[in-house]
Amino acid sequence: MDAEIIIVGDEIVSGYTVDTNSAFIARQLETVGLTVKYKTAIGDVVERMEEVFRTALKRADVVITTGGLGPTDDDVTKKAIVKVFKRNLVFHEEILEDLRERYARRGIKMPAINQNQALLPQGATFFPNKNGSAVGICIAEQGRVFIALPGVPAEMQQIMTDEVGPYLKGLKAGQAVKVTSLHTTGIVESKLAEMITPQLKLPAGVRLAYLPAYSGVTLRVTGVGETDDDAADRVAPVLRYLESVCGSYIYGRDDDTLEAVVGQLLKDNDKTLAVAESCTGGGLGMRLTSVPGASAYFVGGVIAYSDDAKINRLAVEREVIDKYGAVSEECAQAMAAGCRKLFESDFALSITGIAGPEGGSEDKPVGTTYIGLASAHSNYARKLSLGRTREANRARAGYAALELLRRDILDIK
Amino acid sequence: MDAEIIIVGDEIVSGYTVDTNSAFIARQLETVGLTVKYKTAIGDVVERMEEVFRTALKRADVVITTGGLGPTDDDVTKKAIVKVFKRNLVFHEEILEDLRERYARRGIKMPAINQNQALLPQGATFFPNKNGSAVGICIAEQGRVFIALPGVPAEMQQIMTDEVGPYLKGLKAGQAVKVTSLHTTGIVESKLAEMITPQLKLPAGVRLAYLPAYSGVTLRVTGVGETDDDAADRVAPVLRYLESVCGSYIYGRDDDTLEAVVGQLLKDNDKTLAVAESCTGGGLGMRLTSVPGASAYFVGGVIAYSDDAKINRLAVEREVIDKYGAVSEECAQAMAAGCRKLFESDFALSITGIAGPEGGSEDKPVGTTYIGLASAHSNYARKLSLGRTREANRARAGYAALELLRRDILDIK
Repeated sequence: MDAEIIIVGDEIVSGYTVDTNSAFIARQLETVGLTVKYKTAIGDVVERMEEVFRTALKRADVVITTGGLGPTDDDVTKKAIVKVFKRNLVFHEEILEDLRERYARRGIKMPAINQNQALLPQGATFFPNKNGSAVGICIAEQGRVFIALPGVPAEMQQIMTDEVGPYLKGLKAGQAVKVTSLHTTGIVESKLAEMITPQLKLPAGVRLAYLPAYSGVTLRVTGVGETDDDAADRVAPVLRYLESVCGSYIYGRDDDTLEAVVGQLLKDNDKTLAVAESCTGGGLGMRLTSVPGASAYFVGGVIAYSDDAKINRLAVEREVIDKYGAVSEECAQAMAAGCRKLFESDFALSITGIAGPEGGSEDKPVGTTYIGLASAHSNYARKLSLGRTREANRARAGYAALELLRRDILDIK
Repeated sequence: MDAEIIIVGDEIVSGYTVDTNSAFIARQLETVGLTVKYKTAIGDVVERMEEVFRTALKRADVVITTGGLGPTDDDVTKKAIVKVFKRNLVFHEEILEDLRERYARRGIKMPAINQNQALLPQGATFFPNKNGSAVGICIAEQGRVFIALPGVPAEMQQIMTDEVGPYLKGLKAGQAVKVTSLHTTGIVESKLAEMITPQLKLPAGVRLAYLPAYSGVTLRVTGVGETDDDAADRVAPVLRYLESVCGSYIYGRDDDTLEAVVGQLLKDNDKTLAVAESCTGGGLGMRLTSVPGASAYFVGGVIAYSDDAKINRLAVEREVIDKYGAVSEECAQAMAAGCRKLFESDFALSITGIAGPEGGSEDKPVGTTYIGLASAHSNYARKLSLGRTREANRARAGYAALELLRRDILDIK
């Protein structure tokens, strides 16, 4: 079954807001076995919506729109639906009652304009919205399903996950999809392919995709079968094969992030971590603390951007910087050791590098970066030769440092 | 004149990559007076491209595609172009020669597959690509312009900025557009509107939009006129009016960022800055050092995630934390003062808060955050009541701290 996504909103089509909703919806649809063939974005204009809705209903089995369901005059998605499906709007007391109660709980009188939110096209069913006032609208007609969702990401995501996903899954018995992502890091796509391709045998209905990002390359395995179990059975041998040929580079699956995986390892081993950052300026600490509950293992760090800060705050000897430079194996090692001592942590990670665009030399071009680690047992650093883009270099250096620690804790050479 | 953008790529349509190219292109087109009415994303399938290209050529004056121009078999945009325009591919020696030279300069033999990159549809002109092998393709026919660009963002952006923008500008004499964005921070959209709306008189051809983000609300003023000067003249009085009613909240224009503006202020005044971060975990330091050349004013910081780190590293008195808590005005003040002393900097900023999702209480709900400042003259802190989302709270706290410093330096109350 094919799906089509339509994004409604002037801000999207004018480029002032990047659309992330359609990516979320497409991935959700994939998990219930629907393939998105077209995505279209249009402004808040009824005639244009009508045209795009009609085209989509001709070529897709399931059409999902987001945006334009608010109570004010510039939200016109419902107007377009009414025209395309030739139906009247009908008042739903239960929707208004629910909204009234929610306002009452917060001690606020419901603005009268919310009456509009209780009007739905005749014959439509609705999906409740836990985070906002616009319910999801669902019209099934002549074997096609049309679903309109609000454009606020948190609202769309809740309805999509809790309501639309299960609904669509129920609709299409007879085909199931299993998607598993294996996240690798510290190895480039072409090298991974060299390891994987020679012996790879993909069973019928199974696909493998390589998806590179700053954090590393994700291997996405998609299996289609008759039932959930069948789809999972097709995927399983491929996952086992991938684990066997490149398992040491795989740090996690699906929703795992490298920072959360490393955090869990620290927690499981009852260890603490501190960081010493130069070129990343706090980016590694920020990434580590993006995980809720990071305080269980992350104690803090020093942002040592200047040479003086490295010397005075991290006790790096001035001779080390004079002799080898602030971007050197020796300095990265000393930063990690100094940081570990300062915070009395079990581990410390350090990063020092030339992020660019300026600051490079023949000897140490932009991208030259050292990551260091200190623990009770060891103190060492590794050189990275990154690229020319400041943002990418800083992100990649952070992930490389996290991977250094993961390998140290798991004793992977 | 209307424009349409078509994004080609399986990864985009399946939702595994978020499309940012179309937003960039739409904004570039706006500056030359073209309005995007439709955006469509499709996978790498020739038939689907043909259908979408044909539809776009019917309803738009300018069609821009990105993606599918690589040299390998799964890049099929050129195949679809050849079918839609019924033209053969012609070999361009000058394109291949240029590629050969670029490889030679890097000391690498050019892979033979790059021959494909020198094939263009008959009668097409091309836009050179400084960062990659796929040139931009331009076909003008029957008053319509069709432009195909590579999908790699850095390559697309360079060609769009250096080549396509000026080309389209030349095409459509007789209408000019001036877009100016004024960036505000520290004030919500509804309050801004209350200040602006009463006396606002928009001249003919001028629009005002409110665009909220974590960093604040941007006021975008768009003026259309017969010439560049005419468009600029229409916009000017609106900009003056906005400056007069909410100037103290405006930190910059167009490509300005708050971190770069604050950095420039420090540089201009020959002052240095250090940061002490708790809940943001290094995010403020990272933001400050995202500006190339930040080492001129940013010396470093302490990530004091635990109470011990606040006490031992920043010399916050244990009594302060015991009495008022780590998330308090007193603690934020002490963190900033301790940090300034430690780094011997002119200014220090501090952030301590409850980012969520856990850790809130009746008294201090999730979102409660204090930002502090220390200088030679003063030491104070401000309370922020942020929301419930960890990511948003951390980003907003960083911007609020930067704004605290901007106002302190400029002596804005």
